[in-house]
Parts: sequence; structure tokens; C-alpha cells
Amino acid sequence: MVIDMSKKFKIPRGTSDILPQESLVWQDLEKKARKILNLYNYREIRTPIFEETDLFARSMGQTSDVVQKQMLNLTSQRLDEKGHIQLSGLSLRPENTASVVRSYIENSFDKKESLSRLFYLGPMFRGERPQKGRLRQFHQIGVEAIGPGSSSPYLDAEVIALCVNMLKSFGLKKFELKINTLGTLACKNNIHDRLIGCIEPRVDRLCDDCKERYIRNVFRVLDCKKNSCKSVIKAIAFGKDWLDEESLQYYEQVKTALAELDISYTEDPSLVRGLDYYTHTVFEVSDASLGSQDALGAGGRYNHLVSQLGGPQVDAVGFAVGVERILLAKQGSDNESEEDLDLYFLAIEETCVNEIFQMAEQVRRSWKGAPESLSVGINYQVSSMKSQMRAANKARARFVAIYGLDEKRQGKIKLKNMETGAEQDIPKEEFIEKFNAAIIEPGIKE
Amino acid sequence: MVIDMSKKFKIPRGTSDILPQESLVWQDLEKKARKILNLYNYREIRTPIFEETDLFARSMGQTSDVVQKQMLNLTSQRLDEKGHIQLSGLSLRPENTASVVRSYIENSFDKKESLSRLFYLGPMFRGERPQKGRLRQFHQIGVEAIGPGSSSPYLDAEVIALCVNMLKSFGLKKFELKINTLGTLACKNNIHDRLIGCIEPRVDRLCDDCKERYIRNVFRVLDCKKNSCKSVIKAIAFGKDWLDEESLQYYEQVKTALAELDISYTEDPSLVRGLDYYTHTVFEVSDASLGSQDALGAGGRYNHLVSQLGGPQVDAVGFAVGVERILLAKQGSDNESEEDLDLYFLAIEETCVNEIFQMAEQVRRSWKGAPESLSVGINYQVSSMKSQMRAANKARARFVAIYGLDEKRQGKIKLKNMETGAEQDIPKEEFIEKFNAAIIEPGIKE
Repeated sequence: MVIDMSKKFKIPRGTSDILPQESLVWQDLEKKARKILNLYNYREIRTPIFEETDLFARSMGQTSDVVQKQMLNLTSQRLDEKGHIQLSGLSLRPENTASVVRSYIENSFDKKESLSRLFYLGPMFRGERPQKGRLRQFHQIGVEAIGPGSSSPYLDAEVIALCVNMLKSFGLKKFELKINTLGTLACKNNIHDRLIGCIEPRVDRLCDDCKERYIRNVFRVLDCKKNSCKSVIKAIAFGKDWLDEESLQYYEQVKTALAELDISYTEDPSLVRGLDYYTHTVFEVSDASLGSQDALGAGGRYNHLVSQLGGPQVDAVGFAVGVERILLAKQGSDNESEEDLDLYFLAIEETCVNEIFQMAEQVRRSWKGAPESLSVGINYQVSSMKSQMRAANKARARFVAIYGLDEKRQGKIKLKNMETGAEQDIPKEEFIEKFNAAIIEPGIKE
Repeated sequence: MVIDMSKKFKIPRGTSDILPQESLVWQDLEKKARKILNLYNYREIRTPIFEETDLFARSMGQTSDVVQKQMLNLTSQRLDEKGHIQLSGLSLRPENTASVVRSYIENSFDKKESLSRLFYLGPMFRGERPQKGRLRQFHQIGVEAIGPGSSSPYLDAEVIALCVNMLKSFGLKKFELKINTLGTLACKNNIHDRLIGCIEPRVDRLCDDCKERYIRNVFRVLDCKKNSCKSVIKAIAFGKDWLDEESLQYYEQVKTALAELDISYTEDPSLVRGLDYYTHTVFEVSDASLGSQDALGAGGRYNHLVSQLGGPQVDAVGFAVGVERILLAKQGSDNESEEDLDLYFLAIEETCVNEIFQMAEQVRRSWKGAPESLSVGINYQVSSMKSQMRAANKARARFVAIYGLDEKRQGKIKLKNMETGAEQDIPKEEFIEKFNAAIIEPGIKE
């Protein structure tokens, strides 16, 4: 391979860098998510970035758009002793439910506890055509409640409440919760046949993709955003008679439990979600301001996935929200925050750098055990006082410690409060004590 | 593709699940890392999981083992309009320095600030043969200090001090810091030629890999762990005369600055690190207890990488530590911690579930604004009191709230302190207030 040395490298299409200012927003979101997940007693699980391709084919459905068109597969140039290429049959995870269930089974969670409340956060990958709200690397926060003890409509309501309360804790207000039921597996099969029947006379009005979906998996037609397909879907007369008694009763219990938690929702009989594994409750949270890709998150019950992936017959319910979508929905509010730098050391002369270098380290050490966080910066590049103060302002320093030849002669450091403008010359040996007092007290007192 | 429905899915070789108990250890490590990184004023950057393969070939060296043998490449089944396969030429990142530099250049950091102190944490990928301390997905925490203002030996010392202090904050005590210098680029080329000369007479004693490395990149021979190669390396008479005046002086300044921070180190002239891009200071932190893969982390100065990747001529210094290695080195101490569940609601009868379901949510709401975190669990599966108390114990619940027919009749909830065994029957309407008082006070007071 010849390397073109003049090449400018670009970030891969459909991915983005989270730069320092923006990473503060992500950190804040994750902190809030972790707090509310803990409040509901969900515990973190981290699975690998890639899994066997077959795992996703089995869980999401071999005929799903994701598995058919959007998987990112791995290959390796590495040869083993026999000269074979290893690492085939692996794909980047397009979502995390299948991986969590794989881990649940492989680690026999069902033998350890009756209900495993798990959460995850991290990157997911799809080889899609990038557009607003659709990236090749995107990020999700999700929960899965799995186990013999998970077959209660209260758990559906708990998971939905957790989803809604998490979005609220992020500061989102205008989102809409839609719910529906697909009923038991028998019911779902019945709905499938009815849908085929209802759409059949109008199948020529569907878009080309949906004509194919109609054959492969008719449920996916209901997810189509194209107007022609939407009008076909609108004409379908969904009814309670599509569901059996057991399914209806379960759905009623979920709705009652939601009402008890003051969670408001809209019922949408055309909501099915594009994945094979849902039965009973499905839900989606959306924000109209996001345009055509308006889902913030979605989830539902999947009572057959664990056994389908080779595990015990245990029920489960879960959801995932999209971090990028949440940030888009929050846009305009506070998506760029800036962290303060607490103390910024400036040397006025080359010969002064050494002493403030040591002083900066001593200040850090004095805070190492403290529960509060502190941020201490230092500039090793000596330039004019003016340009250094400009840098301090840009870094949003709360205090600046200035050390030049005058200060050196007097054995002092000048501490400037950048908010009030107040300055004091502090003997070097008292600096840590005086600074620590100043940063706790608002303003500097002599 | 035919799917074998009886297949048991396994985690991909060389990767691991971080299960809930272990994830607490990871969370704790990341929290400590973030705190100390903030103390040194480093800010987080998150780059994509994959980049152009060429970026790594250019940064790590086309002839490096990683680029030659260990890259995990992406392919996609997705076709564009013209039927071509997209997404070729992309690889999972084997390390993060190249990505951070790519982002630094693409986002013109050098125009915004004179010194960018950046950190990252996340998964990295190499198609290696898995062994203890070597995984296909592993995790690193690293820093990169890049920019026109980065050409100071104090910054080398700052970065090394940050690395050492971070490892200390994780509770590691026995690790060793080794440092060396490769000098300026001219110097490094001179060392290269001298190494060729020193090894040439003994080249037949090298292992097969190193015979090839000797031709491809002689520096990498110094990284070999095989005894035969080690003895060849030992016989090399490294000397100060291998370095020029400028390089020696810079190295002296770094060592002086380290001494000023009370950072103890060993000098090791055979330390070069297996990557092309280092010049001047290189360092490695290792823990002998880890065996042959003993490096906890490593770093150094790389003044030519930014320009080599198409950016401005700015200097840089950085390091990365391996999270799995750190956890291995900590092994036996506190690698499995368990989070307490603060309150666990138990229903004794089916008809009691509904009310405690609502009560659990009210307790959560009463804590939503609190700075402290609280974890509230609930069991929807009604079983015997005995088996439910066993589950509460297993979940390490601090308090259990019991609600059965007796309690329902009296309009009370029984709150049991699992540590002291003390119980009290609390009227439902006072439950939140009494519980909140009880959880703050140690023990329950009537």
C-alpha cells in the first residue's frame, strides 16, 4: 500500500467528534441518567462493541432492514498458523438488547436473581445513509428488565415511567408518549394476518420498499414515513377485536398502572416498532420538533427473545433512548456549557516558570482528598501579560495566580479574582491556605 | 443464510462482559480518573470508534505490527445507487492518539488555544491472539497535550506526574516508572543507525519476528520479550554520546522537573516504545506482578505527528493507561464491590402490589431533587415472606418495606432496618417522611 503523505484526514462519514465543550453536555446527561437509573435500582452492564452477526440476525429478524442492509461487519488481515483469516462473522452492534440477552443467558443471571434490572449506555452502529438524527455511530441509553420475576404489567409501567422520568430529568418537556399492545404471540400472528388482509387491496399504493416489506414482514409497513404508505395505514380499521381476552386484560393493567403514576400517554394502534421481538406492550416517545426522525426512544415487552436466543423461557421488557436525538431536541437551550477553570498560573518571565510549576502541583495535592473537584491550569509558554490574561479569560479562569520578577523578589504570588477584579499579593508559603480560603468564600478577603 | 435455531451464542473471543458488580469497579475508576484529570485541567474528547485505516497506517507506521497484523477492518453489505460497496477503508481504532490528532487538525484547535489538554476514555481494538492482559477489545484512559504552547519540558513532567498520580489514585502502589529519551528527530535517526550497527553481528540470535523487525524497524526489537532477543539488547552499549547537546539538555530539564515533583523514576536507555511517532521523552509505567504483559501504561512526546498527519507543526506529549491491566494489578484488593439497595418494597399478597407500586414511585419522586443518590427496588412477584426476605438480603437492601393483608387493614407499612433488625409500623401517609428520616439517621427511632 502506498501512502499519500499530502492526504488530509477526515472523520468518517456519519460519525462525529464530541469536542471538549460538548463533552460536558454528554457528561451531564450521563450523570443525570445514572442517577435516575440508580433511583429505580437498575445496574450497569457493558457488553462488547461487536458480537456474532448471527446474534443480531436471530434477535432483530433475518428479514429486518437493519440485518439486511445496515450491518457493519468486521474482517481481519490476521492469519492464524494455518493461514486462515479469523474474525469473520462478527458485526458492530446495531443495538444493545441482543447483546444484553446473550450476556444474561451466558452468565446464567436467571439462576442468581428472579428479576435483573440492567442498563447500558454506549455507541451503536448502522451502515445507514447519514441524515439529521441518523448517524452511523450513534449513542443509546437503555434498560432491560429480564427474568422469571418480570412478568408483571407493573414492570411495563415501571419501565415506561423510568423512560419518561429520565427524559424529564434531561430537561425535555414537549415529548409525547405513545403506547400500544401487540398482545400475546398468538395475537401478534393474528394481527399479522389481518394486516395482510387489510393492505392487500391497496398494495400497489405502497412505496417500493414497503411492497417488499409487505411480503417480508408486514409490520414494518406501519413504520414507513412516506405519505403514500401513511394513507394506506390510516385506512386500516384497527379494533379491539384484533386482540384476545388475555392480551386486552394485560394492556388494561398496564394503562391503569401508568395512570396511577400520572404518566400521560396516547394510544396508537398502528404503533408496532420495526423489530421482530416485541409482544404485548410497545411504546415510543417522540418529539415533533425533530421532523421525520422524531423518535427519542422506544421500547416494549419481549417475552420470547431470551428463549429464542437459546436461553430459558423468561419474560422481559426494556427500552432505549437516543442520545443524539435528545441533544437535538434540547437544542437551543443549553447544549454548550463551559466548565470553569478554578485557578490559572501565569509566569511573566522564563525564570519564574519553575516555581509556579511546583506551586501548581502543591495546590493540586492539597485538594486530592477533597470531595469537591478543583481544576488548576498552568501556562508554560511565556508571553506578554496582556496576551496571557486574554488566554485566562478565554479559559474562564475564576482566579489567576501571577508570578513575575517583582513577585519573585518579594517572595509573593499575586492572586487575582477574575470576577471581582480584586488582587492580593500572598507570601508564597501562605499561598495554598489563602487560595483555598478564597475559592470557598466568594470574593477575596484580606 | 440459514439460521441454526439451536445455536448457543457466545461472547466474541478476546472480549468480555462487564457485569453489574464489576461495572461498579469500572465506574469508580472512571470517576477517580475524571477527578484527577480535571485537577490538571484536561478536558474530555470523544472520537468515533472507527477511522480511516490510512490514518493509523500513517501515525503508527505502515510497518508496525499493529498495522500489519492487528487491524480490525469494517465492511458493509450496504449498496449505494451504483451498486458499490461503501464503507471500505475503515478500521476500529487500535489506539486513540491518531484519532485525537485527526480531530485536533480537522477542528483547528491550534487557532483557538495555544495548548489543548485533552483526555479520552474508551474501548480500543486489536486483532491479537487473546492472552492474559491482551484482549481484542480493551479499554484505555489517555491524555494528549497538543499545541504551539506544548514545547516545554515542564509539560513532559506534568503529563508523567498526572499518569503516576492517576495510578496512585486508583490505589496502585507497587508500579515502576521508567523514562528515556530518543532525542530530536535527527538524534532518533542516529540511534536507529547505531542500533543497526550494534545488532548486526548478533542478528542470527534474534527470534524470527525480530529478524524481520530488524529490517522493518529496528526500534521494535527492543520491545521483544523473548530471552534470546533480550540478551542481544542487553549487550548494546547505549551511551550519552548517542544523543546531541539539545536532546541531552531537554532530557535533563524533564528529569529536574520530575524531581521537583518528587516523582521517582528509573532511567532505561533501551526503552523506545513500539510506535514510530515518539521523539524526546518516552516513559512506561509497569507492574512486575503482571508477568510478561507488565505495562500499565506508556507515553511520550511526539513533536512531528500533527504535521505528519497534515496539520500544523505543533508539538505534543501524551500517554495512555490500560484499564484491564490496572484492574489485574489491583486484583485481590477490592475488584468486586457491591452497591447497596436503600429500600426494597415487598408485597405479601397479590392485592397489595398495587399500593406499594405507587408508594415506591412516591419515594423516588421525593428524592428526585436531592443531591444524594437513592436506590429503590420493588418485587412484583409475590412469593413466601421467607423467600422474599432472602432476595432482599441478597440485594443487600438497607431497609425493607413490607406490605401484607394485616398492614393493608391497618393502613400501615412495616419498615425493617436490615442492619439492626428494628421494625416499625408506619401509617401510609407518614411513610415517606419517616423513611427519609430513618435513612439519614443510622437505625430507626420510634
